[in-house]
Amino acid sequence: MKDRIFRVNMTNLFTSIEEVPAAWAALGGRGLTSEIVAAEVDPSCHPLGASNKLVFAPGLLSGTVAANSGRLSCGAKSPLTGTIKESNAGGTAAQMLARLGCKALVIEGKPQEDKWYSLHVTPQGVTISEETELVGKGNFQVVDTVHSRLGQQHGVITIGPAGEMLLLAANISVKDPDGKLRSHGRGGLGAVMGSKRIKFIAIDPADSTIPLADPETFKKASRTFAKALLEHPVSQTLGEYGTDILINVVNEAGALPTRNFTKGQFEGHDAISGETMHELIKKRGGKVKHFCHKGCVIQCSQVYNDKNGKYLTSGFEYESIWAMGADCCVDDLDIIAEADHLMDDIGIDTIETSVAMGVAMEAGILDFGNGKEALRILREEVAKGTPLGRIIGCGAGTVGKTFGVTRVPVVKNQAIPAYDPRAVKGIGITYATSTMGADHTAGYTIATNLLNSGGHVDPLSKQGQVELSRNLQIATAAVDSTGMCIFTAFAILDDERCLPALVDMINARFGTSLTADDVTALGKRILKTERQFNMQAGFTSAHDRLPEFFSLEAVSPHNATWDFSGREIDEFWDF
Amino acid sequence: MKDRIFRVNMTNLFTSIEEVPAAWAALGGRGLTSEIVAAEVDPSCHPLGASNKLVFAPGLLSGTVAANSGRLSCGAKSPLTGTIKESNAGGTAAQMLARLGCKALVIEGKPQEDKWYSLHVTPQGVTISEETELVGKGNFQVVDTVHSRLGQQHGVITIGPAGEMLLLAANISVKDPDGKLRSHGRGGLGAVMGSKRIKFIAIDPADSTIPLADPETFKKASRTFAKALLEHPVSQTLGEYGTDILINVVNEAGALPTRNFTKGQFEGHDAISGETMHELIKKRGGKVKHFCHKGCVIQCSQVYNDKNGKYLTSGFEYESIWAMGADCCVDDLDIIAEADHLMDDIGIDTIETSVAMGVAMEAGILDFGNGKEALRILREEVAKGTPLGRIIGCGAGTVGKTFGVTRVPVVKNQAIPAYDPRAVKGIGITYATSTMGADHTAGYTIATNLLNSGGHVDPLSKQGQVELSRNLQIATAAVDSTGMCIFTAFAILDDERCLPALVDMINARFGTSLTADDVTALGKRILKTERQFNMQAGFTSAHDRLPEFFSLEAVSPHNATWDFSGREIDEFWDF
Repeated sequence: MKDRIFRVNMTNLFTSIEEVPAAWAALGGRGLTSEIVAAEVDPSCHPLGASNKLVFAPGLLSGTVAANSGRLSCGAKSPLTGTIKESNAGGTAAQMLARLGCKALVIEGKPQEDKWYSLHVTPQGVTISEETELVGKGNFQVVDTVHSRLGQQHGVITIGPAGEMLLLAANISVKDPDGKLRSHGRGGLGAVMGSKRIKFIAIDPADSTIPLADPETFKKASRTFAKALLEHPVSQTLGEYGTDILINVVNEAGALPTRNFTKGQFEGHDAISGETMHELIKKRGGKVKHFCHKGCVIQCSQVYNDKNGKYLTSGFEYESIWAMGADCCVDDLDIIAEADHLMDDIGIDTIETSVAMGVAMEAGILDFGNGKEALRILREEVAKGTPLGRIIGCGAGTVGKTFGVTRVPVVKNQAIPAYDPRAVKGIGITYATSTMGADHTAGYTIATNLLNSGGHVDPLSKQGQVELSRNLQIATAAVDSTGMCIFTAFAILDDERCLPALVDMINARFGTSLTADDVTALGKRILKTERQFNMQAGFTSAHDRLPEFFSLEAVSPHNATWDFSGREIDEFWDF
Repeated sequence: MKDRIFRVNMTNLFTSIEEVPAAWAALGGRGLTSEIVAAEVDPSCHPLGASNKLVFAPGLLSGTVAANSGRLSCGAKSPLTGTIKESNAGGTAAQMLARLGCKALVIEGKPQEDKWYSLHVTPQGVTISEETELVGKGNFQVVDTVHSRLGQQHGVITIGPAGEMLLLAANISVKDPDGKLRSHGRGGLGAVMGSKRIKFIAIDPADSTIPLADPETFKKASRTFAKALLEHPVSQTLGEYGTDILINVVNEAGALPTRNFTKGQFEGHDAISGETMHELIKKRGGKVKHFCHKGCVIQCSQVYNDKNGKYLTSGFEYESIWAMGADCCVDDLDIIAEADHLMDDIGIDTIETSVAMGVAMEAGILDFGNGKEALRILREEVAKGTPLGRIIGCGAGTVGKTFGVTRVPVVKNQAIPAYDPRAVKGIGITYATSTMGADHTAGYTIATNLLNSGGHVDPLSKQGQVELSRNLQIATAAVDSTGMCIFTAFAILDDERCLPALVDMINARFGTSLTADDVTALGKRILKTERQFNMQAGFTSAHDRLPEFFSLEAVSPHNATWDFSGREIDEFWDF
């Protein structure tokens, strides 16, 4: 099936299918969403107005049998940061869209009437229906209802009450193979979907397979790639313990932000660690390994049950556990799991919301460590859109502004995730310079700073961090265009078979003859396109900075401060 | 008495008196506050952190007998806008500080302990005392208590609960000759004072008079200046009807923003007009004329009583009446007066807070026109710092973000005041380009667009507006440095005796030989210093724009839209 652009105009409720412009043919995932947003969205527009566009794009390899290639990119101008945004998620939607020949789904405009809608993506295009039953309902009910209306095989992309209420931390959730959820978590893209009054998008299951220009080469490269992934020790650890294995690693490194970024180690780290989670899952009958999309050979997800053996949450990630755990001083994995499930159902970013909760604790709204009150706030305030719920649901920056807190860990108004930039300086460069606001996935220097993947760069020294972050951000922008999961990066960094196999797969899919240099060039082009959008939206190098408190306050145990000058940070963009 | 700089360090609770550096000798008011903030404050600092400084400076002529010269400038990095900020107020403090030889009071640092303080400015310098009794109390109680502690003659600069709670719309109030309040209203400077944990500043009454280099020339120029002010018809109208006379004028022009900037005329305009206020005051036994500082010959203030003849409010301004009136569709002057008094007591900007209330009405938090609910929200939510109170008390931008409203009338996050920029395009250029965020006083084109002062420029045409705003902003920056009230501008624009007399007074005060050209040069220098600070803080020409909705939505009755291109606006800075 030939790839095409599916376009939906929510102002006049008109849909169309378009040829792919030549300039977009070689793009997918983040490369394509950023290119479309940069080409079609006025950088000065209100992110929740009719001029913004919400773009979904499967990666270049999504829908093929390539291992771990099922990531879906979602892009728009972010209402949280005001920057361009790409957030990618697992789940089944990328593979399904790709098999329908949907290279990108572009949603534009805004309905005039006070009504809600759903979209249905089929091989013939997109149909728009009015939706009434599911308005105000949680994400899990949306999935269940789509299952009963259309069948279990349909894909689902959905927003919860947070997206409907246009909260700035609202995410967009994507159904996984078990009917659970993965999320386009960051940047408030759920509010953009909500502003377009789309409650959910159902995707027809297609029988078709992705056409390959050179099936034999593809098959060979795909095997090499999967083997490299499988053999990498980080892949194996992630499969066994999930991403939460990082709790003890990062705590040991003194870089686990604790008590709203006032300490680098959490006394309760053992209680929330990957090792503890692994034991609890085994004891309670969950699943240690679980995938977010078919073809994943790492399987870092898991199914986590409560003490009665009843399902509590899945896709229970390090970042979410750190944020509600160490950052809020909650040392109870069951409470964190319940919070995780609630946030998934409400449809709100676990990182942004939990870091906001940490700032709220500093403001005295609730006590550090009071997980039960955090649960109550999620259930009774955020989910219902009370004023306090809206403050917290609009993220850490909003809590800081409304309560006059000066220790607010955000860059470009997006919450800083689970690695203290004073103790892992490479990730600080990524937070500062990412076109997305603070985002660890944009250039995951933790790989090299702490996990010795791709060599080693001393996390506490300034030496080499800018170059490390630059190289990783360029590579990541390219990898985010392929549909590959970020955890392929370890193998790509360490196993010399891996990158050539990835390039071979792309060439064999499209009949191109790209080289590794082209991949680097693609990454650079994406970053520059995104930065150009941001500059037109009013961002300057003055925004490529960490909050003042990281320079003023040393963090234990290393007594480290953030000591990069503006000029040193700005060297990032010298490429 | 020789002018000196009084400096207070709230980190170590140390105070000092310093010589005036030569570079600052010729500066006063806004020229001096902006120069000091630009020189001493890191543009990237957190506005509520220890690195920000709060600077008070009387104008160059404050303390002399020059008519209308008693304005006090207050400057800092604004927590509301993130820009440099100067906000000036009437009241007795400027004249008193000037007579104490205090050219500027610079407050820096931030206490380590969770305590509140007061400052006492005397001829010997500043003393710092811990304050407990008045913490949490309203501004009027602060004034009464200072009166009883120190005597009626002391000057008072104070913050209310809003400033203590660090709300972004918190103002700083200054006692007037009757013990009522005038305000440094805009930009959240009350939160900066609150962050430094200063509840109030008491000022010793000094007997000393300001030394004059050439008393005879001063006397003569001062008489000419006062005469020109007195004879100008706008001065006379302002004295008779107050600034509220503008309600009918601006409504007639179709430029009175109504129902959160969706219409240009308010059906209830008569009920809230200056003419109606004048009749009510006469009937109820208030004062039609009232001054905010001695030596004012215009006396645009008034004392407004309730229907039982009991004092309700004073300094009851057009902007406040418009904002809670037309913008919120409240057509009851008594309710608006009560809101005005409440906001004065809470210590919060009437423009920002009432425009925020209008956005809250659009969000459905309360109904348009429901003044009683607005009063309840002020009294029970804003004053008490509930989550809803904090949202509204942090201004229109915060309400818009937390409730997902796209029609949010702000520039650089500061609420647009009482003239629709689509129907008076000159003021739109001022809103867009002012270094302060949306601010009518920065370059009051209404004078020429609607009142035919300084000629006439058609308010609905783009022609000539950039030049008009530029000339007025340059002149205003200079006039804001003299301590002169903005209402001297009408005489300065129309009466050829006026500007030379103003220059003569400055020369006669300081023994200088400035010309009118030097005044223009000073205005330009101030604007450029302020803009430089803003650019270092991350602002670009992309921020010199009105919100998108002004371009997308036509406003009745003229069916006018905002139609300036970015390039046309940016010509403002061509000087």
